Amino acid sequence: MAEGLHFAVTATDGAARSGVITTPRGKIRTPAFMPVGTAATVKAMLPESVALTGADIVLANTYHLMLRPGAGRVEGLGGLHRFMHWERPILTDSGGFQVMSLAGLRRMGEEGVRFRSHLDGAEHFLGPEESMAIQRRLGADIVMAFDECTPFPADAGTAAASMRRSMRWALRSKAAFGAAPGQALFGIQQGSVYPDLRAESAARLVEIGFDGYAVGGLAVGEGQAAMFAVLDRVPALLPADRPRYLMGVGKPDDIVGAVRRGIDMLDCVLPTRSGRTGQAFTRRGTVNLRNARHADDPRPLDDACSCPACRHYSRAYLHHVQRAGEIVAAMLITWHNLHYYQELMAGLRAAIAAGALAAFADRFARLRDEGDLPPR
Amino acid sequence: MAEGLHFAVTATDGAARSGVITTPRGKIRTPAFMPVGTAATVKAMLPESVALTGADIVLANTYHLMLRPGAGRVEGLGGLHRFMHWERPILTDSGGFQVMSLAGLRRMGEEGVRFRSHLDGAEHFLGPEESMAIQRRLGADIVMAFDECTPFPADAGTAAASMRRSMRWALRSKAAFGAAPGQALFGIQQGSVYPDLRAESAARLVEIGFDGYAVGGLAVGEGQAAMFAVLDRVPALLPADRPRYLMGVGKPDDIVGAVRRGIDMLDCVLPTRSGRTGQAFTRRGTVNLRNARHADDPRPLDDACSCPACRHYSRAYLHHVQRAGEIVAAMLITWHNLHYYQELMAGLRAAIAAGALAAFADRFARLRDEGDLPPR
Repeated sequence: MAEGLHFAVTATDGAARSGVITTPRGKIRTPAFMPVGTAATVKAMLPESVALTGADIVLANTYHLMLRPGAGRVEGLGGLHRFMHWERPILTDSGGFQVMSLAGLRRMGEEGVRFRSHLDGAEHFLGPEESMAIQRRLGADIVMAFDECTPFPADAGTAAASMRRSMRWALRSKAAFGAAPGQALFGIQQGSVYPDLRAESAARLVEIGFDGYAVGGLAVGEGQAAMFAVLDRVPALLPADRPRYLMGVGKPDDIVGAVRRGIDMLDCVLPTRSGRTGQAFTRRGTVNLRNARHADDPRPLDDACSCPACRHYSRAYLHHVQRAGEIVAAMLITWHNLHYYQELMAGLRAAIAAGALAAFADRFARLRDEGDLPPR
Repeated sequence: MAEGLHFAVTATDGAARSGVITTPRGKIRTPAFMPVGTAATVKAMLPESVALTGADIVLANTYHLMLRPGAGRVEGLGGLHRFMHWERPILTDSGGFQVMSLAGLRRMGEEGVRFRSHLDGAEHFLGPEESMAIQRRLGADIVMAFDECTPFPADAGTAAASMRRSMRWALRSKAAFGAAPGQALFGIQQGSVYPDLRAESAARLVEIGFDGYAVGGLAVGEGQAAMFAVLDRVPALLPADRPRYLMGVGKPDDIVGAVRRGIDMLDCVLPTRSGRTGQAFTRRGTVNLRNARHADDPRPLDDACSCPACRHYSRAYLHHVQRAGEIVAAMLITWHNLHYYQELMAGLRAAIAAGALAAFADRFARLRDEGDLPPR
């Protein structure tokens, strides 16, 4: 364990727990949702606004940053935090997921992945050693092991082979990471939907030893029920005293279900991406602000929300600027969505602390099922 | 004169003056630069940020707002100020300039202009009476008379005919505007580059009587020298006790020259539009942040600037996000540009108050001519 990362569970409620991860750059209240800042910006947000939503940590993407502006350049400029003006913790992914999504542009082997940049076609190579070097140069507080996100569906043989390669890469990641004061390294469990493979992967990761453990290979098309079935077994497989991070999840009800099953950290592009297409997340489910029924609606998106979009603007305005393609639409709706996600996390943390998570989840589902306000 | 608008000149320096326009929605320090908020948003800015740059008033476009979301809708939602969450003064243009720019889509006559919407092809009609009604429904603090912006070049006969029609429209605008407590009406001088036509237009406007007087038909291709030649005669033609507004101007040196010639208000899309293409205005001239020479530059855009883009980010970061097409590039560079423009206005006001405008203009030109910092 890196000396940089300390995790204290402060309350539990069934499998769920709340706590605090302490890093040299600040505390992360868990369960934590990490907004995605792919290219060194949480799209359409200033970092001060991201912090105002309640985010303690953001995620950045190694693949994008290694290509543009380049890890060496970021390092030369004082590291990612200074570069993007975000002094709180940053987690970087390994780049593996993105390079392996480059269909036709990549060649994968035991060493790693050779691929061509989507920007200029230049050839690059990324394996565990390269990924560790890049993430350390970026200055991430939490570095992710290099792995293969096993595609779904995969038969058991394919899933086993993929998982075992990821475990060999996990070992190489650990070795290449070395001693990195102030930086922490997380391993990533694979194994698709197969309980025995998930167990084997977890055991192998624990044997190697990481500062935290991610659950990878989910939210890739298997559906919520299959995802929850995998998550049901996570607490028994991963160390209770280390953070558990579910990668790439998800919709609000995915998050509630994952937290109930013992997940401490999550990330997803949904609130930011949806913020640029007029899709808002609210207590009453999703609201499509492009819909003409909002055109004359003087009400806020959610009158119980304290974000700037809800405090200062009508649905009619949000509809107007969204339809007009104005940048302020992305700015306001993204802000709302991130605010909503962070309020959800704060609600989950408070409910766990109060031993009232089941009631919280019931209320969450009831409001969502009621749906958006009727038009007026 | 509407009871709503009061103008006090507090200092003069040659033809230049500084002062305060007082409206029911607040004071406008002059000389004033008005950011353009075409479709009820200053593009890529939140209104709180626009206010932080020092702007006392913004401009909104009647043409865009009448088509989307529609003046009746804005009125029904409580007016433009509430709609766009900007409680300070707003000036609306008449819509004339934009509809007359719709080549092929419009038919102009003595009554006004019949045109097709660029959004859906629907037919609309805009004349002085319609423009006044729309601007009043939007709730503008300063309403502009409906006029024709005489194209450049125009021979003297064409310019005279165009100006005289605008003067007939000015009279109809005044009549249609009626008594509008809290709202003010500005007339617009035309006459192209012809001194006698400018004089005739000004005399006619003063005869009709307006709360303020705009100089229209400039910055349309005539060049800075010709524009300044027209402006040299403005103080002698327009009442000294009413604000003088130069429409659609301009680059920083256009602004300095216009203010020296007695202009009190200006507007231009340059700082906002350039903010979306990576072009920054600084004390040292314009800086193109797309240029590769900024890629490794740890310095701020301007170390003497206190805007967020300059306080918190390197040129390298601004270059990176601009090249990556990130929204935050437009947000930061627009903020910087508006901040720069407002600092320029504050500098002009202070110089006029100190009787030191010539020295200010010299220093402005010297720094600009030095050009941007050399690369390092």
